[in-house]
Amino acid sequence: MDRSTTIGLASGFGLIILGILTEGSILAFWSFSSLLIVVGGVLASTLVNFPMDDVFRTADAVRVAFEGRKFDLLARIEMFTMFARRARRNGLLVLDQDIQFIDDRFLKQGMELAIDGTSEDNLKHILEAEIKNLQRRHETGIRVLERMSAYSPAFGMIGTLIGLIIMLGNLDDPSAVGPGMAVALITTFYGSILANLVFTPLAGKLAEYSEKETNEKEMAKQGIISLANGENPRIMERKMLSFVTPKERAEYFRVYGDKAFTAQQEEKVYDHWLSQQKEKWESVISTIPNG
Amino acid sequence: MDRSTTIGLASGFGLIILGILTEGSILAFWSFSSLLIVVGGVLASTLVNFPMDDVFRTADAVRVAFEGRKFDLLARIEMFTMFARRARRNGLLVLDQDIQFIDDRFLKQGMELAIDGTSEDNLKHILEAEIKNLQRRHETGIRVLERMSAYSPAFGMIGTLIGLIIMLGNLDDPSAVGPGMAVALITTFYGSILANLVFTPLAGKLAEYSEKETNEKEMAKQGIISLANGENPRIMERKMLSFVTPKERAEYFRVYGDKAFTAQQEEKVYDHWLSQQKEKWESVISTIPNG
Amino acid sequence: MDRSTTIGLASGFGLIILGILTEGSILAFWSFSSLLIVVGGVLASTLVNFPMDDVFRTADAVRVAFEGRKFDLLARIEMFTMFARRARRNGLLVLDQDIQFIDDRFLKQGMELAIDGTSEDNLKHILEAEIKNLQRRHETGIRVLERMSAYSPAFGMIGTLIGLIIMLGNLDDPSAVGPGMAVALITTFYGSILANLVFTPLAGKLAEYSEKETNEKEMAKQGIISLANGENPRIMERKMLSFVTPKERAEYFRVYGDKAFTAQQEEKVYDHWLSQQKEKWESVISTIPNG
Amino acid sequence: MDRSTTIGLASGFGLIILGILTEGSILAFWSFSSLLIVVGGVLASTLVNFPMDDVFRTADAVRVAFEGRKFDLLARIEMFTMFARRARRNGLLVLDQDIQFIDDRFLKQGMELAIDGTSEDNLKHILEAEIKNLQRRHETGIRVLERMSAYSPAFGMIGTLIGLIIMLGNLDDPSAVGPGMAVALITTFYGSILANLVFTPLAGKLAEYSEKETNEKEMAKQGIISLANGENPRIMERKMLSFVTPKERAEYFRVYGDKAFTAQQEEKVYDHWLSQQKEKWESVISTIPNG
Amino acid sequence: MDRSTTIGLASGFGLIILGILTEGSILAFWSFSSLLIVVGGVLASTLVNFPMDDVFRTADAVRVAFEGRKFDLLARIEMFTMFARRARRNGLLVLDQDIQFIDDRFLKQGMELAIDGTSEDNLKHILEAEIKNLQRRHETGIRVLERMSAYSPAFGMIGTLIGLIIMLGNLDDPSAVGPGMAVALITTFYGSILANLVFTPLAGKLAEYSEKETNEKEMAKQGIISLANGENPRIMERKMLSFVTPKERAEYFRVYGDKAFTAQQEEKVYDHWLSQQKEKWESVISTIPNG
Repeated sequence: MDRSTTIGLASGFGLIILGILTEGSILAFWSFSSLLIVVGGVLASTLVNFPMDDVFRTADAVRVAFEGRKFDLLARIEMFTMFARRARRNGLLVLDQDIQFIDDRFLKQGMELAIDGTSEDNLKHILEAEIKNLQRRHETGIRVLERMSAYSPAFGMIGTLIGLIIMLGNLDDPSAVGPGMAVALITTFYGSILANLVFTPLAGKLAEYSEKETNEKEMAKQGIISLANGENPRIMERKMLSFVTPKERAEYFRVYGDKAFTAQQEEKVYDHWLSQQKEKWESVISTIPNG
Repeated sequence: MDRSTTIGLASGFGLIILGILTEGSILAFWSFSSLLIVVGGVLASTLVNFPMDDVFRTADAVRVAFEGRKFDLLARIEMFTMFARRARRNGLLVLDQDIQFIDDRFLKQGMELAIDGTSEDNLKHILEAEIKNLQRRHETGIRVLERMSAYSPAFGMIGTLIGLIIMLGNLDDPSAVGPGMAVALITTFYGSILANLVFTPLAGKLAEYSEKETNEKEMAKQGIISLANGENPRIMERKMLSFVTPKERAEYFRVYGDKAFTAQQEEKVYDHWLSQQKEKWESVISTIPNG
Repeated sequence: MDRSTTIGLASGFGLIILGILTEGSILAFWSFSSLLIVVGGVLASTLVNFPMDDVFRTADAVRVAFEGRKFDLLARIEMFTMFARRARRNGLLVLDQDIQFIDDRFLKQGMELAIDGTSEDNLKHILEAEIKNLQRRHETGIRVLERMSAYSPAFGMIGTLIGLIIMLGNLDDPSAVGPGMAVALITTFYGSILANLVFTPLAGKLAEYSEKETNEKEMAKQGIISLANGENPRIMERKMLSFVTPKERAEYFRVYGDKAFTAQQEEKVYDHWLSQQKEKWESVISTIPNG
Repeated sequence: MDRSTTIGLASGFGLIILGILTEGSILAFWSFSSLLIVVGGVLASTLVNFPMDDVFRTADAVRVAFEGRKFDLLARIEMFTMFARRARRNGLLVLDQDIQFIDDRFLKQGMELAIDGTSEDNLKHILEAEIKNLQRRHETGIRVLERMSAYSPAFGMIGTLIGLIIMLGNLDDPSAVGPGMAVALITTFYGSILANLVFTPLAGKLAEYSEKETNEKEMAKQGIISLANGENPRIMERKMLSFVTPKERAEYFRVYGDKAFTAQQEEKVYDHWLSQQKEKWESVISTIPNG
Repeated sequence: MDRSTTIGLASGFGLIILGILTEGSILAFWSFSSLLIVVGGVLASTLVNFPMDDVFRTADAVRVAFEGRKFDLLARIEMFTMFARRARRNGLLVLDQDIQFIDDRFLKQGMELAIDGTSEDNLKHILEAEIKNLQRRHETGIRVLERMSAYSPAFGMIGTLIGLIIMLGNLDDPSAVGPGMAVALITTFYGSILANLVFTPLAGKLAEYSEKETNEKEMAKQGIISLANGENPRIMERKMLSFVTPKERAEYFRVYGDKAFTAQQEEKVYDHWLSQQKEKWESVISTIPNG
């Protein structure tokens, strides 16, 4: 759950309504035709701007902004060092069963390639292409929201122009100028709010998560390649730790410490981890509706 | 067919007209001289800004925004793995007849180079130069539309300035200010709509298709080079699959499955594919008018 | 001749004048002091912004926007394949006399380096440095015009502010507000036109030609390096063809076809080409005034 | 201490208040509901735009803008040359005790890796990943402030629109237009000040310090790699000096001169340096509260 | 001397004053409190935005915009070819005395490194780091001016808002609206002029000189590396010539021609050059005040 999105939207709209109520009536700010022009216009331009599929996929992506994503980089580093220690003792193939409960597709498929003995060049090539592809998909969603953010004030202004032209064209009664102007400005008001409280911040949130996910995938890529190369577990751990903040690094050493396990202890750790993964896996599976 | 372009334009203009009708008369928004200044001015600046050829070619490119493009990446991957399996069994030269019915020029010519035994360096060099050249052509079209999008509000403002200067210079009758102002604002209105409902979204749509086509060509490049290198078909398949989304990847495995054909089955698959290609080819040919 | 520049400027100014005449008098749009502030201010800021030489050189560069440039890439590819076939038969040195009538400096000097046996590394290094240098020169000119384009509306606004401050400060007669305002807006009008019909489009045109010329030079670089390496003429031809559009490529094969000349035929083609070059050269020379 | 931040903010707000007082009353510029809309709206959009953690971390980062950071590049170069001379005489391992009092984490951990005999490739890889990670963290903070800077005038305008719509809708008394307008403009005023005196400059300051710290880390990376490679101390010194300004370089040679120490003198210099480091270390430790 | 800066500023301010005088009184444009808000506000935000040192250093950098810089690339190429011919005959060490009178620090120190036998990798590494460092310093200055240019219209608007809010809040006398408005607009006027005639153009001028100096340093780097590698003088000359314009290249061949000196002639040329350098050096020294 990323509560900040919900809190931000709720408090933002709340504040604006509060600001209106302290000075006047909220009714003066309601105009169906203004809403039609702004929201409709933005959607129309977005449809011209993007293939239909990309627009629909963005609706999906926006959910991420509300649900949030957690990346437990430290647990992942610990998992990789465990893998590396096991692979050192028993060969890379032993990991074949370990990875069956990993629920991150990128990680699982990358590990499978490594275990299958894919050459380092090919492994790197494939993992990098996947990360690039992931970014491209993210960027399309961000671009859709950014364009909607740009179209919002534009259609706000177009609506205001419509209001002004009609009002000014029928200027029989000078006292009607004020209210006419007020109505005309409502579309500008709608456009500004949509752009600055909804579309731009949502595009920003998706961009932040995209960056965090890319960082996580880059770290996983590093781990997979180190594993495939049979690199020293400590060097691998150190390389992966350069993807986390100094604070997290200190936390990592505090929690996972410096381990020098016997083979037996290692087995125990592994059994514990495996049972955890299975539980997690089953809880994921159970959320999938039958049918 | 990319219906979103037509739907977007129709609904956008429809909404604006609806918005106008609910509050006033559509006649108040018609001004031939405003249209002349905005559309004429935009075209004039575009002609100064681009060589004549590039302007004409853009008119062509805009058609793509309406017709849309479909890229069946999965079928292409399947085709390449079939090629790879055939080449493994019978040598690369056997593909010489397979490619005669391919209607994608880039793919066909790239395959010819590979079959002719062009060195990997030269092959890469040529395919990359072609992709870069393709992008350059796309970008010229996008640039033309983006500039038109920037000139539209500018000439909208110039038209409004003309109207204001004339009106303010002859200010005998104060009651004429309103209607004069209304007329002056029409060019700004035209400029805003052209920019935000037509030129910017169209430029955006072309950019989206350009990105998709580049991705498709990059994938084809990967396939051609893998084929030329006699790479393992499964590695080639995996590399190409990193160009599609995870959803499409799952779809690919569902449809095309994991094949382990006998040479005989392979032949059957090939015969089926070839007859399909021929049909497609003939249907393409038949659309070309005689003479 | 790039007629689009002249046509664009003429029709743009024509349309604006027409637009003015249909609604009022052209005299209301003439103000010498406005012209002084806008044009003078833009020139002043441009002088502060750029070394004197760069400003003068831009005046020169603008000529290109009117004269246009034609790049016959196909003829150049044909020339290079002829060179390559000749070099294959008679050695690279035989080209020494062929290149004396080439009137493109970059090409001629690059060929001389190749014929002199410059190493591939040095050849690449020098040709790339020259292309980069060419781009830097182009970009300076484009930057000058783009800055002028940014200063134009700024000084338009400064002029309008001057008019407004004077008018509002002496507001004895309310009926003078309108005409005063009209006069004040003229500088904004001038600034907008200069920016959107003159400077931005001219900067754009120079950028387009710069891109086309860079593409041409990149193709020539490719040809020179292929020649120096004694590359197979058909591979060289193919590499160079990836710099032209598919349409031009089809045209190339239609016109120049697939040649398999005997040494004798080759000689004839060469003699024909050489006499053409000489004629061209002499016509270039004849345009240089005596003295 | 970076006093310029405090001085700038104090004098900026002072000047604006002074400017107001010379012409009117400061009370006319106070509006609680305006403050609510601008500050509240900016915070709301920022929460939608960024994960909660990143927003809190920015509050921390802003402290740097007030406290400033000093990077004594010259002392660091001197330290590295001392290390290099010692390592030349006694081997790299002798540095193990030297580095225990270094209070820069990046430097200390990098030196540990070098002393542990990490391969050059891995060392480079890790140090570069850490620098990139550092930049990413900095950039998140800068991005938060830049977005706040963009939302400020936007919510300023939204507040003004609210004021205008209410005022124009109730236009019974024409004499109320002026004061109503004045109140409406206060939110625009708040938004402009927040953007131009607070958020944009603070984002700028953080960006400047980020750049300086990156430069310092790049220099340290250079030093660590040179040490690990056992590079000639003078070459290392020269390479590190290319990260400082010519003026600092002259200063360096003036202060630290050209040293040709005997082993004995070297020891003395080292002992002096070590005692200094210990003192510094203890003073750092003493600032940490007990508990 | 770069006169264009002085001429531009003088004529720009002259034109604006002239424009004012032809229509009204210059006194209407003077307001101390406006100046205070704009200039003071810009300085305050700049202090928040940059470390104090960088602000002071920019004042220094601005001097370059007035004094200008001349880069005699041709003389430098000639010097390098002389060096190369001498080094060919007498070894690189002979240049040790030649370089003592060179007054360009980058060049002198680079030559010293080359003569000391620094490896090509290290030489390249150091020279590139220095050029990057030079650019970073330039960019800081340019950034300070660009930010000042952005803050100027912002504080212009803030000042105008202050004026408007005060005026509209005390709207007893409708006839005071005009003059009040006029006064309020003066800060906008100041902000526009500062941005468009002073800060933006000065930032631009520094950027132009930075680009020219970088080009000169890149050429010197090329020369130093060629010398260190003992490259053929003609190849070195050719490589360096790709940094100058075709016109300068023609000029170079006209002035310095194709030289094939005997060892004796070479000595004479060298003696002449050395005496020139000494003179130049002494004249530089003599400008340094005693004490």
